[in-house]
Amino acid sequence: MPKLVFSRHGLSEWNALNQFTGWADVDLAEQGVEEAIAGGKKIKEAGIEFDQAYTSVLKRAIKTTNYLLEYSDQIWVPVEKSWRLNERHYGGLTGQNKAEAAEKFGDEQVHIWRRSYDVSPSPMPHDHPYSAHGDRRYAKLDQSVVPDAENLKITLERALPFWEDKIAPDLLSGKTVLVGAHGNSIRALVKHIDGLTDDEILEVEIPTGSPLVYEFDDNLNVLNKYYL
Amino acid sequence: MPKLVFSRHGLSEWNALNQFTGWADVDLAEQGVEEAIAGGKKIKEAGIEFDQAYTSVLKRAIKTTNYLLEYSDQIWVPVEKSWRLNERHYGGLTGQNKAEAAEKFGDEQVHIWRRSYDVSPSPMPHDHPYSAHGDRRYAKLDQSVVPDAENLKITLERALPFWEDKIAPDLLSGKTVLVGAHGNSIRALVKHIDGLTDDEILEVEIPTGSPLVYEFDDNLNVLNKYYL
Repeated sequence: MPKLVFSRHGLSEWNALNQFTGWADVDLAEQGVEEAIAGGKKIKEAGIEFDQAYTSVLKRAIKTTNYLLEYSDQIWVPVEKSWRLNERHYGGLTGQNKAEAAEKFGDEQVHIWRRSYDVSPSPMPHDHPYSAHGDRRYAKLDQSVVPDAENLKITLERALPFWEDKIAPDLLSGKTVLVGAHGNSIRALVKHIDGLTDDEILEVEIPTGSPLVYEFDDNLNVLNKYYL
Repeated sequence: MPKLVFSRHGLSEWNALNQFTGWADVDLAEQGVEEAIAGGKKIKEAGIEFDQAYTSVLKRAIKTTNYLLEYSDQIWVPVEKSWRLNERHYGGLTGQNKAEAAEKFGDEQVHIWRRSYDVSPSPMPHDHPYSAHGDRRYAKLDQSVVPDAENLKITLERALPFWEDKIAPDLLSGKTVLVGAHGNSIRALVKHIDGLTDDEILEVEIPTGSPLVYEFDDNLNVLNKYYL
């Protein structure tokens, strides 16, 4: 039975500081490492054996994926990294403290940026210290796909080709797949897989530290969905 | 200028116990982790930026590769894992203490097994606890390529296709490549790259913790070779 496990990375250094992170390449906090190790042990206890793993090009997700594989005794499983699984790009909010942003722009505006489906924050200028433009890992992409700000709709639009080209074909060939990624790239793919409306996905939160398992039939209809 | 960096993993738990390891999937000792982190910092100081990394399917090399990339601030670089970069398979000696093997078989015999170019130790039976047959990571290979014992000649013969198919084409396209592997898989490739005779390679030792850099011209002639 094709099986897909999503795992959202745990606490990062900027989560701990209550800062918007997005594409800034922030490391896991010690608690985030512990969450990943615990997730790996849960996968091992559940007896899940992966054929393929995917992650983003951001270290907090890559390290989480590596720990998940190491602590489920399958670090040899192939891992492919793609910018299409990156966190939603938080634009000009990147690096700002969430409480300070609420003071500056008002609670309502920040709530809209964080929770609306298709409203983006102000774009990040290319000379911003956290701009993806000029970052070597994105240098060989058509620069028109390198975002300056994203909402969940845009995040889904750029994550969906990765589902279509990589994850879904793996599942259709009977593979068991791990996706170690981010709150919003996982939410985007969950919206697609579960066929949720633009409003319904806004109610969905992906927990950290508890891998989310999907089991499919041979046509990729969802048979079971549960957290480890 | 095409550039290739070999890094041999540092001390493993069985190195510390003076046991033959080969394809047994033994973890790094704490000292081995520290060697990998130090290697990553040397790569960062040298300003080496990788386009591609390769490693074996054995955790001591995979973890070393991951640490090298993490501590040189490029953990996002693609990593491909292949059994062709595995350590030489030590056959029936796997898991045996080297001093005890010398007592049992004689110093001279053990020296021949360790240092001759084309003499293999006795084959490992398939019901041996460390046999690669029955291991999930090798299950989708033609089982005739899964070894029961290897010498350096056989190690080179199965590593060479990986050089020909992956590493050399990357270098010829101008990429900078990391290979995080093992003493004997690196020696095998060094024999090929440096054009050494069967006798000359026996004198070559690859140190741990000091990445070995090759710089090539556009036809893969070696221009420079040095340790970081």
